[in-house]
Amino acid sequence: MNFASDNAAGVAPPILEALQRANTGFAIGYGNDDATHRVEKKFSELFEREVSVFLVPTGTGANALALAQASPPWGAVFCHSEAHIARDECGAPEFFGAGLKLVGLSGEGCKVSIDALEQALDRVAWGGPHHVTPAVLSLTQATEAGTIYQREEIAELSACARSRGVVVHMDGARFANAVQRLGISAAEATWKAGVDVLSFGATKGGAMAAEAVVYFDPKRAAGMSERRKRGGHLVSKHRFLAVQIEAFLANNLWLTLARHANRMADRLAERLSSIGLRPVWPVEANLVFVVIPQAVHEKLQAGGARYYVMQSQSLPNTVHVAAGSMLVRLVTSFSTTETDIDRFVVNAGG
Amino acid sequence: MNFASDNAAGVAPPILEALQRANTGFAIGYGNDDATHRVEKKFSELFEREVSVFLVPTGTGANALALAQASPPWGAVFCHSEAHIARDECGAPEFFGAGLKLVGLSGEGCKVSIDALEQALDRVAWGGPHHVTPAVLSLTQATEAGTIYQREEIAELSACARSRGVVVHMDGARFANAVQRLGISAAEATWKAGVDVLSFGATKGGAMAAEAVVYFDPKRAAGMSERRKRGGHLVSKHRFLAVQIEAFLANNLWLTLARHANRMADRLAERLSSIGLRPVWPVEANLVFVVIPQAVHEKLQAGGARYYVMQSQSLPNTVHVAAGSMLVRLVTSFSTTETDIDRFVVNAGG
Amino acid sequence: MNFASDNAAGVAPPILEALQRANTGFAIGYGNDDATHRVEKKFSELFEREVSVFLVPTGTGANALALAQASPPWGAVFCHSEAHIARDECGAPEFFGAGLKLVGLSGEGCKVSIDALEQALDRVAWGGPHHVTPAVLSLTQATEAGTIYQREEIAELSACARSRGVVVHMDGARFANAVQRLGISAAEATWKAGVDVLSFGATKGGAMAAEAVVYFDPKRAAGMSERRKRGGHLVSKHRFLAVQIEAFLANNLWLTLARHANRMADRLAERLSSIGLRPVWPVEANLVFVVIPQAVHEKLQAGGARYYVMQSQSLPNTVHVAAGSMLVRLVTSFSTTETDIDRFVVNAGG
Amino acid sequence: MNFASDNAAGVAPPILEALQRANTGFAIGYGNDDATHRVEKKFSELFEREVSVFLVPTGTGANALALAQASPPWGAVFCHSEAHIARDECGAPEFFGAGLKLVGLSGEGCKVSIDALEQALDRVAWGGPHHVTPAVLSLTQATEAGTIYQREEIAELSACARSRGVVVHMDGARFANAVQRLGISAAEATWKAGVDVLSFGATKGGAMAAEAVVYFDPKRAAGMSERRKRGGHLVSKHRFLAVQIEAFLANNLWLTLARHANRMADRLAERLSSIGLRPVWPVEANLVFVVIPQAVHEKLQAGGARYYVMQSQSLPNTVHVAAGSMLVRLVTSFSTTETDIDRFVVNAGG
Repeated sequence: MNFASDNAAGVAPPILEALQRANTGFAIGYGNDDATHRVEKKFSELFEREVSVFLVPTGTGANALALAQASPPWGAVFCHSEAHIARDECGAPEFFGAGLKLVGLSGEGCKVSIDALEQALDRVAWGGPHHVTPAVLSLTQATEAGTIYQREEIAELSACARSRGVVVHMDGARFANAVQRLGISAAEATWKAGVDVLSFGATKGGAMAAEAVVYFDPKRAAGMSERRKRGGHLVSKHRFLAVQIEAFLANNLWLTLARHANRMADRLAERLSSIGLRPVWPVEANLVFVVIPQAVHEKLQAGGARYYVMQSQSLPNTVHVAAGSMLVRLVTSFSTTETDIDRFVVNAGG
Repeated sequence: MNFASDNAAGVAPPILEALQRANTGFAIGYGNDDATHRVEKKFSELFEREVSVFLVPTGTGANALALAQASPPWGAVFCHSEAHIARDECGAPEFFGAGLKLVGLSGEGCKVSIDALEQALDRVAWGGPHHVTPAVLSLTQATEAGTIYQREEIAELSACARSRGVVVHMDGARFANAVQRLGISAAEATWKAGVDVLSFGATKGGAMAAEAVVYFDPKRAAGMSERRKRGGHLVSKHRFLAVQIEAFLANNLWLTLARHANRMADRLAERLSSIGLRPVWPVEANLVFVVIPQAVHEKLQAGGARYYVMQSQSLPNTVHVAAGSMLVRLVTSFSTTETDIDRFVVNAGG
Repeated sequence: MNFASDNAAGVAPPILEALQRANTGFAIGYGNDDATHRVEKKFSELFEREVSVFLVPTGTGANALALAQASPPWGAVFCHSEAHIARDECGAPEFFGAGLKLVGLSGEGCKVSIDALEQALDRVAWGGPHHVTPAVLSLTQATEAGTIYQREEIAELSACARSRGVVVHMDGARFANAVQRLGISAAEATWKAGVDVLSFGATKGGAMAAEAVVYFDPKRAAGMSERRKRGGHLVSKHRFLAVQIEAFLANNLWLTLARHANRMADRLAERLSSIGLRPVWPVEANLVFVVIPQAVHEKLQAGGARYYVMQSQSLPNTVHVAAGSMLVRLVTSFSTTETDIDRFVVNAGG
Repeated sequence: MNFASDNAAGVAPPILEALQRANTGFAIGYGNDDATHRVEKKFSELFEREVSVFLVPTGTGANALALAQASPPWGAVFCHSEAHIARDECGAPEFFGAGLKLVGLSGEGCKVSIDALEQALDRVAWGGPHHVTPAVLSLTQATEAGTIYQREEIAELSACARSRGVVVHMDGARFANAVQRLGISAAEATWKAGVDVLSFGATKGGAMAAEAVVYFDPKRAAGMSERRKRGGHLVSKHRFLAVQIEAFLANNLWLTLARHANRMADRLAERLSSIGLRPVWPVEANLVFVVIPQAVHEKLQAGGARYYVMQSQSLPNTVHVAAGSMLVRLVTSFSTTETDIDRFVVNAGG
């Protein structure tokens, strides 16, 4: 009954097998190996255009490098005020970006609202020498609330950003969950809707430690190679990074794994609703947030359930976390079982 | 009729005279001269304890150095969301602080409210490896809205900060205006109320280009000497920086100049009120904010008046900037004359 | 016949098996799992004292974090002028260290000489506000030249550094090769000889992507947790990082693998010497440098041999790379075979 | 008898008078005033082409901003190993440049030799992801040794740099002394010889605190405005910075002042030579370096002479600083008198 995080899961078997298969003979290091070249080609196929790809071992590394690359040190990076990059990376974007500034925007369910974005961009005091310059809009897909941006929402936000020269970044730590749910192509979910650069997540989805920064316009990637190296994110035995992603993409494994995780979240949401614990936000990816009484929390903990208690300022107006209650986050993954869910709900109910 | 900024004013004559007097013979550079030593002593007298002082040519330099010194790169600096350090320094604190994070707090009249501070500090997710660590509370005295923190307010905010190990910084670009209005000693307005480090402003008050970072506990200043140098803020012909401050402090010139500026702001506020243009915030320093109709704006511009149109999210609930109106900022200084004010009001009215 | 780098090798089988065994059930992320705790304990045993350990996926990450932690931004880090941190990390130490300065020292065979260190430290102009402050001495063990520092040499260099308040860092990307050859304990090779912090390498020795920063005085590690996270080097599925190191240390695998690599280097050196290609430096780890004529190079390339042509300013006086010749680096690893070596030498000779 | 530094001198009277004249009425801040516009125009005339100019209060600020602007964070800045930017700015270029790397080159008399530059650039290992990329060549004119680069030398070094895409920066803290001695135009001494960006010094030459970064191609200046502000180097009462430079340039005051300082250095050199103290380097600007016995040093100190004892690795082969002797630096300025010099020599001799 571990719902703490999708990174509490292990490695999807086909990925572990790929690691083993890759362990034969010598391969030149630092990304000049065949597996890396195959992955680069695979990404171009997946996104239906020539892309530029940089593999790194962590999601924080992927995001921080992508943002630092897209923004000058005096740039403003707009994101939801509860985004992972703003809350949970200990200032990595500011560090890699030589002191860039994150500007938190509001929006229910951790989705940046178009109103919030427009209002922020229309503020008089941007640029000049005195004020930071709008540089990047970063959208988390799926969001920290387990909601997803619809294609039209991405397009609308991107258009607003791009009309002011603002680059669009997508933090896709849970990109697979979002694309699976949207039922559209990876291209439609990104550059066709205006995304310039994507942090493509594989770790949460089933890899061991592998993420990719994908540039839909390779010209935007100038300098990334140096940034990755000096950030310590150029892995030496690079084939073992590459084959993780290769196996993740092969036969649409990434979507298959995401489908399972999403389905488990749906099941969890339904079961919890049936005992009166209705998710506070629409369950669109692999995260379920519910408000539970302290007594239920204690019972669950005693039963061995693992999850985090959270706080959020972007709850719907209709939801209040009363004293004696708490907002909890339940995360499913490729390895969550129906049994886990059913046991959890039994513990929570009854 | 220049109300654009107090830095549109020139240099107070006693300060210019001090510069001339200092221009005799040789003096060792970089702060090892007699004038600098005299200023250091003078500050210790003024603040009634041994202080450590670092002179720099700009207010942005003073603030950014002080914040970088007080916060680790993974620190959070709490300030009002419309503070100068957050809005008008092009990310200088983030740059000097190697990517520290400013956290904007709300509060009417650009004053951080104790509620906002407590709420922010009580958020679950600070520190650990994942989240930035609360490091500094920065209070602007007087504020960008021309309001001032009362001694008790400083004490309350400082106590809250210090109880969590958070250092208290005061951005005193208009410290003179505040102290003059408060009618308390410089010591009472700072360390006796819990302030750890002060950016003591002289430029806006009448100097040419001179500010001081004052540490009330010299032990807190470790490394500042190196930071100042490598920030390019160690002035070589240092005596000319020192004598500006010396003259500013001598015979309470700083308070005399501030008294004039404050009085001019009062007069401006009264006259404007008398023609129906009531300041939106209490006029407590040398800034007056009023909402004026477009027609009045055009008349004033035509008459040669100079001031800035502003935006603010911290207006009182009762104030609305209707379409066709605008919020304008009027700044007085040591060199503002009654004639200027009266002409301005005549232009604005009738 | 791949002698390009020890990172062209794959993963030692026991380490890959450990990864598979670890892939069961859930484990809390970010280093709070059991495997990580076991590794921390194991390191304390290995080094015969309580140490503080931070696992990261890359050697550049380990070095850059360790140096940034040990030096203020205005610090000088002394190292050999051809050290990996100075030449091959694209400025990672300067980036992580917010602009610290590497000071290259001379010494034959890429070993910092005590004379060079003393002379550098005795220069008048260190510290003050104007000059950077000596902060760290970084020794690479084994060096880029495949030489190693004897225990007494480490002790002498460390004593010199420590007497001036300079912290001693060891870049141990090939620490295993050095310790195996020295035939002393890990403790004797480090803190007992004056080393404060070690980048303990596992990747080059046989892991997939795993390094450890080891503090012999845990108090020196304050802030490392935040630095690692904001550098993007806190791996989420952390158990898979931990078990690599665990398997590397178990049953002295690290020394067994190093012994093989070192033995292969010895064999290569002997065989090459026997055909007149005598290594330019003593072969003390798993690197062999020889000067070969262009014709031999072409034959080797044609035969499929892989290695790098290098340049060095720290060759012995007696060695010259004549026109038409080149200095080449041959690296052995745990997976180098005698057959590889014999084929290479046959290609190079006859 | 103060020969400690040209920044121990005061302010040239015409510059102080300009400050007084400027102190009338209001002037918009931050460089939008008339005086600043006049200075910008004046610089374009002086350099015989349209230039882009950024005034700052310190030389370290000017250099660090110019270098950070011209180099990516992963860039290498080549300079003489004893250059001010490398030795005396406490790492300011590395700080502003987000961790760029200074590469020290050799050359007698603190002049980068073309051989040293070519050799450095021809090293195999630049760029790629692993190595920093050659970005800037910084020449100090006049040098720290008081020597100057001839026009042809600048042209040769610049051509070498530019052929590899390396930008040429000139640290002109003593540019006036060099140009006066060269007897060529400011244009010939800079862009006509291949210089891209100049730190034009006025402080050492007679200003209070004023330097200018001059771009000969305004397109190279993109972002400098933001960099200056966030570095805290945008002075608010900017007219007082501008009129210093204006007065410095008016009627060739800068060259007149430099001529005096240079002439005083010549006189000092001649007189010292006549008593057997021959300067170690050609005296081409306003610095004289001689080796004196300890006894002479003591006599001079007792007589009230002020100067610094130095160390240098770029002495001519023929010069040795024997035990019991020391290398001293004597700096003249616009305010040095013949009497000072004669008294000094009498003290040193007899």
